[in-house]
Amino acid sequence: MGLFTKDIQSMDDLFAHQLQDMYYAENKIVGSLPDMIEKSTNPDLKTAFESHLQETKSQVRRLEQVFQLCGLETKAVDCPALDGIIEEAEEVAGDVAEDRVLDAALIAAGQSVEHYEIARYGTLIAWAKTLGRNDCANLLAQNLAEEKAADQKLTSIAESGANRAAA
Amino acid sequence: MGLFTKDIQSMDDLFAHQLQDMYYAENKIVGSLPDMIEKSTNPDLKTAFESHLQETKSQVRRLEQVFQLCGLETKAVDCPALDGIIEEAEEVAGDVAEDRVLDAALIAAGQSVEHYEIARYGTLIAWAKTLGRNDCANLLAQNLAEEKAADQKLTSIAESGANRAAA
Repeated sequence: MGLFTKDIQSMDDLFAHQLQDMYYAENKIVGSLPDMIEKSTNPDLKTAFESHLQETKSQVRRLEQVFQLCGLETKAVDCPALDGIIEEAEEVAGDVAEDRVLDAALIAAGQSVEHYEIARYGTLIAWAKTLGRNDCANLLAQNLAEEKAADQKLTSIAESGANRAAA
Repeated sequence: MGLFTKDIQSMDDLFAHQLQDMYYAENKIVGSLPDMIEKSTNPDLKTAFESHLQETKSQVRRLEQVFQLCGLETKAVDCPALDGIIEEAEEVAGDVAEDRVLDAALIAAGQSVEHYEIARYGTLIAWAKTLGRNDCANLLAQNLAEEKAADQKLTSIAESGANRAAA
């Protein structure tokens, strides 16, 4: 965004900016999940991350459809928030000595990524509806439902013993 | 955290690290909210941020109680995730020309902060219970309940017209 200009004039501009932000985020997550899959030792966790990697690739394609529907150029803007979340996950994971403690840290990292996305998609869907773009809202709602399910899956893996075993 | 050592050996270490991370985050939010209050033009939004600033100060005190209960030194570790979320909020807010569009951007920023905290407190509570520290879990659950209520308040402000008026 411009440092000396007010680039966002309308809700359309704000929606486009947030969409570009999510496009960056989802692509970054596609790049980061393989490392989380590799580090996971709990097989259920590994499977959950693998399945979410496939979902995330579909989510990228849905975002591309939203860009098209709105007549916007498909592009990404830097997302310092997601960068920070991933940086923190890598930093903490790098500091963990024991496998099961590492799994607990990876679950926590995954859930903070999911919650970031849940917040962002919630906002994007509300704005799409405000702008009369129910077609876009429906696509974004599919992504949101997958993020919520992924978050719940991580909670159930944590509760089913990853955390307890690590204690 | 150390770059060349594995500093997190146990769930106790991971819990302490996450607690220090949240202590940094809550203090940073106390520092950031006054700017968000000043920028808000919707009076309901301004009031919601003001009331959340008071809540956040109480949350800092509850975290200090958790440190004490666990016999840990009260300290903060850098939290790149929250730094990124705040940086992005400031960047976007600085780019917005129109008041009501700015309010919509501030609501979105507030909700991504809340969701970050919801994810983190959810994890901390699960770990506290795993470690047999229900006393800590209860204090953290009070913070979590306030974050969820703050998120819902922002949703209701958005739905009650801030977004619609901005379109």
